[in-house]
Amino acid sequence: MKKHFKKIALLLLVIPMFLFADEPAKAADPVAEKLAAIDTLKVGLDTLWVLVAGMLVFFMNAGFALVESGFCQSKNTVNILAKNFIVFAAATLSFWAIGWGLMFGNGSTPYLATEGLFFLSGADNSPAIGDAYQGVYTSMNWTGVPLNAKFFFQLVFAATAATIVSGAVAERIKFHSFLIFSFLLVAFIYPFTGHWVWGGGWLAALGFHDFAGSTVVHSAGGWAALAGALVLGARKGKFLPDGRIKPILGHNMTSAALGTLILWLGWFGFNPGSTMGVGDGSTMSHVIVTTNISAAMGALAATVTAWIILKKPDLGMILNGTLAGLVGITAPCAIVSPASAAIIGAISGTLVVVSVLAFDKLKIDDPVGATSVHLVCGIWGTLAVAIFGYEGSPAGVAVPSILTQVYGILAFGGFVFTVSFLLWYVLKLAGGIRVGEEEEVSGLDLGEHGAEAYPDFSIRVRG
Amino acid sequence: MKKHFKKIALLLLVIPMFLFADEPAKAADPVAEKLAAIDTLKVGLDTLWVLVAGMLVFFMNAGFALVESGFCQSKNTVNILAKNFIVFAAATLSFWAIGWGLMFGNGSTPYLATEGLFFLSGADNSPAIGDAYQGVYTSMNWTGVPLNAKFFFQLVFAATAATIVSGAVAERIKFHSFLIFSFLLVAFIYPFTGHWVWGGGWLAALGFHDFAGSTVVHSAGGWAALAGALVLGARKGKFLPDGRIKPILGHNMTSAALGTLILWLGWFGFNPGSTMGVGDGSTMSHVIVTTNISAAMGALAATVTAWIILKKPDLGMILNGTLAGLVGITAPCAIVSPASAAIIGAISGTLVVVSVLAFDKLKIDDPVGATSVHLVCGIWGTLAVAIFGYEGSPAGVAVPSILTQVYGILAFGGFVFTVSFLLWYVLKLAGGIRVGEEEEVSGLDLGEHGAEAYPDFSIRVRG
Amino acid sequence: MKKHFKKIALLLLVIPMFLFADEPAKAADPVAEKLAAIDTLKVGLDTLWVLVAGMLVFFMNAGFALVESGFCQSKNTVNILAKNFIVFAAATLSFWAIGWGLMFGNGSTPYLATEGLFFLSGADNSPAIGDAYQGVYTSMNWTGVPLNAKFFFQLVFAATAATIVSGAVAERIKFHSFLIFSFLLVAFIYPFTGHWVWGGGWLAALGFHDFAGSTVVHSAGGWAALAGALVLGARKGKFLPDGRIKPILGHNMTSAALGTLILWLGWFGFNPGSTMGVGDGSTMSHVIVTTNISAAMGALAATVTAWIILKKPDLGMILNGTLAGLVGITAPCAIVSPASAAIIGAISGTLVVVSVLAFDKLKIDDPVGATSVHLVCGIWGTLAVAIFGYEGSPAGVAVPSILTQVYGILAFGGFVFTVSFLLWYVLKLAGGIRVGEEEEVSGLDLGEHGAEAYPDFSIRVRG
Repeated sequence: MKKHFKKIALLLLVIPMFLFADEPAKAADPVAEKLAAIDTLKVGLDTLWVLVAGMLVFFMNAGFALVESGFCQSKNTVNILAKNFIVFAAATLSFWAIGWGLMFGNGSTPYLATEGLFFLSGADNSPAIGDAYQGVYTSMNWTGVPLNAKFFFQLVFAATAATIVSGAVAERIKFHSFLIFSFLLVAFIYPFTGHWVWGGGWLAALGFHDFAGSTVVHSAGGWAALAGALVLGARKGKFLPDGRIKPILGHNMTSAALGTLILWLGWFGFNPGSTMGVGDGSTMSHVIVTTNISAAMGALAATVTAWIILKKPDLGMILNGTLAGLVGITAPCAIVSPASAAIIGAISGTLVVVSVLAFDKLKIDDPVGATSVHLVCGIWGTLAVAIFGYEGSPAGVAVPSILTQVYGILAFGGFVFTVSFLLWYVLKLAGGIRVGEEEEVSGLDLGEHGAEAYPDFSIRVRG
Repeated sequence: MKKHFKKIALLLLVIPMFLFADEPAKAADPVAEKLAAIDTLKVGLDTLWVLVAGMLVFFMNAGFALVESGFCQSKNTVNILAKNFIVFAAATLSFWAIGWGLMFGNGSTPYLATEGLFFLSGADNSPAIGDAYQGVYTSMNWTGVPLNAKFFFQLVFAATAATIVSGAVAERIKFHSFLIFSFLLVAFIYPFTGHWVWGGGWLAALGFHDFAGSTVVHSAGGWAALAGALVLGARKGKFLPDGRIKPILGHNMTSAALGTLILWLGWFGFNPGSTMGVGDGSTMSHVIVTTNISAAMGALAATVTAWIILKKPDLGMILNGTLAGLVGITAPCAIVSPASAAIIGAISGTLVVVSVLAFDKLKIDDPVGATSVHLVCGIWGTLAVAIFGYEGSPAGVAVPSILTQVYGILAFGGFVFTVSFLLWYVLKLAGGIRVGEEEEVSGLDLGEHGAEAYPDFSIRVRG
Repeated sequence: MKKHFKKIALLLLVIPMFLFADEPAKAADPVAEKLAAIDTLKVGLDTLWVLVAGMLVFFMNAGFALVESGFCQSKNTVNILAKNFIVFAAATLSFWAIGWGLMFGNGSTPYLATEGLFFLSGADNSPAIGDAYQGVYTSMNWTGVPLNAKFFFQLVFAATAATIVSGAVAERIKFHSFLIFSFLLVAFIYPFTGHWVWGGGWLAALGFHDFAGSTVVHSAGGWAALAGALVLGARKGKFLPDGRIKPILGHNMTSAALGTLILWLGWFGFNPGSTMGVGDGSTMSHVIVTTNISAAMGALAATVTAWIILKKPDLGMILNGTLAGLVGITAPCAIVSPASAAIIGAISGTLVVVSVLAFDKLKIDDPVGATSVHLVCGIWGTLAVAIFGYEGSPAGVAVPSILTQVYGILAFGGFVFTVSFLLWYVLKLAGGIRVGEEEEVSGLDLGEHGAEAYPDFSIRVRG
C-alpha cells in the first residue's frame, strides 16, 4: 500500500514537471519558475568561482614579474617587466585567435583538434553539460559555465606556460625574439600538447591524470624554457674559464618575496579553481588544503636542505622551495591526501635545491631557477599522482599506473622540447635572439628600452 | 485531454504555493521553506559577487599609489603614498556622509537628488527589487543586494574618481589642498554628475549608456585632474625656456608595473562587477573577456606605436597603453563583441601615446599621464558605445546614437571641468595650493612630511 | 473548507518529500533532485565565501612582510622576509598537527579540548550543522562547510597571530629562535586560549563576544610580541645613554604603504569572512561597511593627531592609524552601527599615535609598532563591543557587559603574556635568542642568511 501511495504521490509531482518542459515558463507558475531558478543559480555560482579563480591566476603575472625581476640584476629590470607584460598581452591575442580552438576543439584524430579553431567561433551551447552539450568544444562539456568563462580561465593558464619561459631566458634575450616565441608557444605548442590531456586527446584516453597542470602547464613551460636556455647559452661571466661558478645576485629580495606570495595566492585559483565548478564545495576545500600544505612543506624542506648544504637558510631557496611545493602538488592535488601532500611538498622543496645546484654544475644558466621549479618539480608532481593517488579521491578518477604517467611526461618532453628547440634555433638563424655583448654588460634596459628602472638611485658596479 | 490534465496537475502544485503565501513559513513545511531558500541564495550569491568585486576595486588604491609614485621622483614618494591613502579615507567619509545620497537618492527634478541625502539614512527595503522596492534609492532597485553592499561598491568607484586627480597634480600640490579638494569632489561634484546617469537623472532618460564608468568615473576624474594641472602649472624644470621638454623620469619602474597589474586585476571588479548581480553568469563572463582583450590590445598597440614614434618599446607607454585599453572598454564592455573590444583597445593604446606627447606639446604637465589615460580614453570609450554597440547585447539596452553619447560627454566636461577649475582657483586664492619653489626642488617628502621614502639608499642628484 | 483544502494540498506536496527521504534519489524524480540541489548550492556558496575570505587573510602575509620590512632597515630585509615566509609555513604544519584540534576539539572541561587532537583526525560529518552535526569539533557546527574549509580559514587566522610577533622582535632576533617560538605559539598557546572563546570554552559560556578576533587573534599576538620585546631588549642605539630616543627610520615607505593596503584588503576577508557563511548577505555587507569606515577614520584620526603632536602628517602614523582602525573594529564589527564604527576607528587612530610614543617613553622597543596596533587597539576593540554594541545587531548575540569583556581581556593577557614570557626566557637560557652585537650592527641579512636584499644599490651608512 505504502508503495502504491508513494508512486501516486511521485506521479503528482513529476508529471507536471515533464509537461512544463514543452512550453515556455509562465509568470503564473511560481513553482516551475523557482525550480528553473535553481539551475540558473548553479550556473551563476560556478561561473563566479571560475572567474574569481581565473582572476587569481591572472594575478600570477604580477608574481612572475616580481620573482623574475627580483632575482635578476637591476640593469635588466625594465626589460623583464616589459617582457612579463607583453607576454600576457600576446597570449591573450594568440590564445583567442588560435590556441583555444586547437586545445579544446573536437578532433577527427586523438592528436589534433580540427573544429572550431579560430576566435572562439565554433558552435557551442554552454553552459549545457554532458549529453545536453551540443558544440565543438566537447572536451569542456563537464563544466556548466558560459563559453567566455571557460575561455578566460584557460587563457590565464596558457599565459602561465609562456611566462615560465621568461625567467630562464632572462638578462640576454632580445625583446622581439621573446615576443615572437611567446606568441607561437601559446598559439601552437602549448595547445597542441594540451589537447592530448585536457582536450580529450590520446593521453586522456590512456588515463593519464594531471588535475591542474604539473605537466600540461608547468613542465611544458619548463621544456620550452630549457630549450631557450640551451640555445641562448649562459650569461657572460656566469661560468668562469677556471671552472668556478659566479653567483649573479638578484637585485631586489623584496620583489622576489612579494612575488612568491602573490604566486602562492594565485595557486589557490590555479589548483582549487581547476574544479571549474563549486559542487558541494568538498573538492575545492580538499585541494586548497593539499596545495597549501605542499607549499608550506616545500618552503620548510628547502630551508632545511639549504641550511645543510649552503650552511645558511637562503631566502632564494626558501622562495623557490615554496614554488616547488606548489608545482609538485598541481597534478596530484585532488587525488592525494593532505598527509601525502606534505610528503610531495617536502620532496619538491628538497629537489629544487639540489636541481638548482645541478643545473649550475651542468653549466646551464637559468637566472631564476625556472627549470628546476617548473620542469623538475612538474615531472615529480606528475609521477606523484601514481605514487600517492588513492581510489575514491575527490578527483573522481582511477589512479593511473606510473607507466601511464611516465608516458605522458615523455610525450610532452619529446614534443615540447624538440619543437621549442627548433623554434628558438630558427629564430637564432633569422637575425639572432641574443643581445650584443656590450648591451648585455650595460644592461638590456638601456639597450632595448632606452630606460632605467631606478634612475634616482646610485647603482653599484658589480665586480 | 492532455491539456486538461496539465491544468489539474498545475493546480495541484500552484495552489498550495498561493496558500502558503498568506501565512508565515512553518517548520513542518519543507517544500515552502526550500523554495524560500532559493530567494535567499540568490541574494547571497549576488551580494558575494558585489562585495568581492568591490574589494577588487578597493585594491585599485594600491595600483594607483604604485603607478603614481613609480612614475614620479623618489623625493616625492612619501607624499604621493600619503595622498593615495588619505584620498580613500576622506572619500569613505564624504561619500557616506553626503555623496551616496546625492548620487542615488530620488530627486524631484532630473538634475538633482533630494531624498535620503545623508549617511545612508533614507528609507530602504533592499534587497527588494523592481516594484517591490520601497525606498528613496530607487535608481539602484535593479540589483537585489543589501543597501550596505550597494554603498560599498559605489564608494570604491567614487574614490577612484578622486584618485585619478592625484596623479595629474603630483610633485607640487600641497597635501592639505589635495585633501580638501578630494573631499569635496567625492561629496559633491562626482555624485552630482553621477546622478544624471546612474542615479536615474536626465542623461539616463536620454538613453546615454556608460556601463561601468568611462564617463561617470574616468572622464569625470580626468576633467578634475586637467583643471588641477592647469591651475597649478607645470613642475619647475619640465618645460625649458628654450622650448625643450625635459623628461622627468619615474623613480621606480617595478612599482609602476606592479601597480598597473594590480589595476588590471582591479578592473575585473570594476567592469564585470558593474553587473551587480550574477544572473546566469553570461554577462560577467562576456565583460571579463572584452575587458581583458581591450587591455591586451591597448598594451600591444602602445608598444608598437611607441616603437614607431620613440624607436623603443617604452615601458611607461606599455603600462599606460594597458590602462588606456581598460578605460576605453569601461563604458562599452557589455554592449560590444570581443572583436570590437580588440579594436577599441588598440585605438585606446595608440591614442594614449599620441595624447601624452600632445599634452607635452601643449605644455600641460601631467606627471603620470592621468588625463591621457582617463580623460582622453574615457571620452573615446564613451563614443565607442555608439560606434560598436549591437542590439541584443548583454547590456540589455538599446544602442544610443553617437549624438546622445556626445551630449553626455559635453555635459560632464562642461560641468566637472568648470566647477573643478573654480574650486582649485578658490583654494589657490585662499592660501595657495602649490608648495614653495625650494620645497619642490628638495622634495615634498621633506617639506610636507618631514620624512624620506628610502633613507638607506644613496640618491643621485638629478641634473 | 479553505483550511481543509490547504491541508490536503500540503499533504500532497509534503508527504512525498518524507517518503523520498528513506531511499536514494532517483533519476526519474526531478523535483526531489532539485530540492536537494538547493542544499548543495547553499553549502557550495558558503564554502566559496569561506575559501575566498581565507585567501584574502592568507594574502595578509604579504602585507605583514612588507609593512615589517618597510618599517625596518635595509640590512635586515632578507631576514624579515624569510621570517614572514617561514612563520606561515611553520604555522601550517603546527596548526594542522596540533593547533586545530586543541582549539576546536570537544573538551571534557571548559578549559581544554580533549578530542580529535591531531591532524584533523577526529570524527566529523561536516557540512552538517547544528544537531545534525556528529563529530568532535562541535564548536564549529554553526557553519555548514566542509571540514577542510573550516581548517583553512582558521589556519590563516592562527598564522596571523604568529606574524604579529614578528614585527616586535625584528632586527635582533635569531632566525631559529623565532621559528621555534612561532611553531609553539601556533601549536599550543594560540589554540589554548582560542578554545576559551571560539572553541566553546568558558569565555564563550560567559557571553564574551569577539566576532573576528580583536582579542583571540590580535591582542593574543600582541601579548606574545610584548613579551618577546621585553625579553630581547631594545635595539642597539635606539635609547641613548643621555635619555634621547633615536628614531630608526624604515628603509622603504613604498613597501610599508603597499603592505598596509594589502592588509586592509585582507581584513575584508578577516572580518566579513568571519560570518563563515553567506546567508542573505546582510551580515557580511554590514561588516564590510563598519570595517572600512573604522579603517578610514583610523587613518584620518592618526593623520590629525600626528599633525598636532609631531607637526607633520607622518606617513608611518597614517599607516599605523589605518591598521589600528582595522584591529579596533575586529571584535565589534558585527555588533555596532556604521556610526559607532566611525567613532571606534577614530579613537583607535588616536590611540595608536599616543601608544607608539608611550612605548618609546617606556623604553620598550617595538620597531614597527606591533604592540600599539595589535595589543592596545585589540583591547580597545574588545571593550568597544560592550560600549557600542546594540541588541538585534547582525551578530545575533546579546551585548555582553563591559565586565565580561574585561574578564576576557585579563584572562588572555594573563595567560598569553606569562606563558610567552616564560617560553622566550627558556629559549634565551637555552642558547640565546638575540644575535651578536656585531651582527646586529652589520645586519641580520649577512649574519643569518649570508645575503643582501639590494646588492645593486649603494647603501648609506646610518649615523
